Amino acid sequence: MPVSRIELIPVEGMPEIAPGDDVATAIMNHAELSEGDVVVVTQKIVSKAENRIVDVDPDDPLSHKPLVEREAVRVLRRRGDLVITETTHGFVCANAGIDRSNVAAGTVALLPEDSDRSARRIRARVKARVGVDVAVIISDTFGRPWRRGVTDVAIGSAGIRPIVDLRGTEDAMGNELHVTEVAVVDELAAAAELVMGKATGCPVTIVRGVDPDWLGDGEVGSDLIRRPAEDLFR
Amino acid sequence: MPVSRIELIPVEGMPEIAPGDDVATAIMNHAELSEGDVVVVTQKIVSKAENRIVDVDPDDPLSHKPLVEREAVRVLRRRGDLVITETTHGFVCANAGIDRSNVAAGTVALLPEDSDRSARRIRARVKARVGVDVAVIISDTFGRPWRRGVTDVAIGSAGIRPIVDLRGTEDAMGNELHVTEVAVVDELAAAAELVMGKATGCPVTIVRGVDPDWLGDGEVGSDLIRRPAEDLFR
Repeated sequence: MPVSRIELIPVEGMPEIAPGDDVATAIMNHAELSEGDVVVVTQKIVSKAENRIVDVDPDDPLSHKPLVEREAVRVLRRRGDLVITETTHGFVCANAGIDRSNVAAGTVALLPEDSDRSARRIRARVKARVGVDVAVIISDTFGRPWRRGVTDVAIGSAGIRPIVDLRGTEDAMGNELHVTEVAVVDELAAAAELVMGKATGCPVTIVRGVDPDWLGDGEVGSDLIRRPAEDLFR
Repeated sequence: MPVSRIELIPVEGMPEIAPGDDVATAIMNHAELSEGDVVVVTQKIVSKAENRIVDVDPDDPLSHKPLVEREAVRVLRRRGDLVITETTHGFVCANAGIDRSNVAAGTVALLPEDSDRSARRIRARVKARVGVDVAVIISDTFGRPWRRGVTDVAIGSAGIRPIVDLRGTEDAMGNELHVTEVAVVDELAAAAELVMGKATGCPVTIVRGVDPDWLGDGEVGSDLIRRPAEDLFR
């Protein structure tokens, strides 16, 4: 593979994850990780491993709504059953990120308590077991205003700078770029989703070939979440 | 490459694009296209080819602001010099999508008049010249509320369904998925940006290995733009 290409590699054949399972080991049992890989892990299996699964009435499609109110710090908009919330983590998303897909009937999955911590743990376990430095992104599927459809975004990360600041570097014409802070962890989460699909039992993608300059410190919580005071839409 | 992988391949060495140039030919001169490839083209070279470049006072950093007012149908928010606009196309973005990067000093680039049409033309020229069916996405870099940093999104497309509707297909647990309409053209634009960078003179990425079920009819304008009446944040 020429060095400038990027490959999106689905990790297939992983078993169902249950509370207490080690996600990092499950990944390493089904994939050969290389230095500099970005491992994108869907939120659902992290929530399962961390026992963030809650029982609800299987016969009532709205039985998770009290949980939504509990997990949200603020409701931004309501329309019918749709509630756009700000979560305790600072994410703005539908239903406080709670959903009923890819979990057993009669249960829902809450978001991990701290997805940056979840990412750091997976990264540390990979390093401990195979001696390889990887970046880890926890991804989830969010809607957005103004554009139809959902895309995957990063809700936690470790070993990669969430925002790569190209401010002040020159563009191809020699002009100074004034504001180009690229949210690379969100672009990586979106890219990873392209090979995961939604219902194929593939919860992890390896992104191979990412610019090594992007690897480093940072986390979604402190670097990517826009503070309400600087947000024009809250 | 195993069939389930996706490759992101930058198209390197393309010349500067000038008004009247044929973008499709420039791409084909620097890349071997295959059936089913998704060709992601940055807005800037399309705007240049379509002569959407406008002279402004090179010494006044705000000299493009009157153009912003002209290209916008509505201003959603203002803070200092930042203007969040709805464009004639229905996009919500800063400064009506006008920017000064990667164009000659003293000029700015407007968005293409109709990026779906631009995408259709590139697709048709590829088909005519090499007999290969590709999908084409025109991408641009937009900010978003609630999350810091910018990501690339699709502003035009051809030969691919912008939203892949997984509504009603079963997830891995046998539950019915209620709402999973994935904006795959936005995820493809974001993925493509990972190899293009912002200032490397690489304006085109080939995405190879995309699910052939996604290829088909549709366009950004009619399929992806959320109508104001169904938008909770306008």
